[in-house]
Amino acid sequence: MILEVAILNVISGQENNFESDFKKASEIISSMKGYINHELKQCLEKRSRYILLVNWETLEDHTEGFRNSPEYQEWKQLLHHYYDPFPEVEHYESISFER
Amino acid sequence: MILEVAILNVISGQENNFESDFKKASEIISSMKGYINHELKQCLEKRSRYILLVNWETLEDHTEGFRNSPEYQEWKQLLHHYYDPFPEVEHYESISFER
Repeated sequence: MILEVAILNVISGQENNFESDFKKASEIISSMKGYINHELKQCLEKRSRYILLVNWETLEDHTEGFRNSPEYQEWKQLLHHYYDPFPEVEHYESISFER
Repeated sequence: MILEVAILNVISGQENNFESDFKKASEIISSMKGYINHELKQCLEKRSRYILLVNWETLEDHTEGFRNSPEYQEWKQLLHHYYDPFPEVEHYESISFER
């Protein structure tokens, strides 16, 4: 299992629209092969910042399966215009003593 | 419930020692009032990077209860010397449609 982590900085003032469009987008990601679960949370220290955490069965389910899918084009169209700067996405795995 | 998020950049070459000391430190944090659960995960793109995710009942359980406790001094002594740079810690809450 691989955890995708993205810190999302949303253009100030667009938080409500982003949250509403994310709700639609969450149905897209939830339907993808290898998707396990996700959480979107809002930062207490900076209200225009969010963290997206997605568990995938494998790295490739995200980087190849999802990103090369037609569904990703819809995801992108719904969400990418909210971000400034565009987020860096990283992947994390459990460390040995927890594996 | 509040999610504490810290991206931890460990000095290169000290990953194994950090993981071993984190295992001890996880017993400290797990015993604190308001602690719910935590995960430490290692970055696939940069192996000296980790993410620490801790769920607390309230923000103050972390920022006041834990950080002002004698146990925090032990935590600090075990772990803080591994970090470069010293991490920024943020807190996140569920957004309205998930609350």
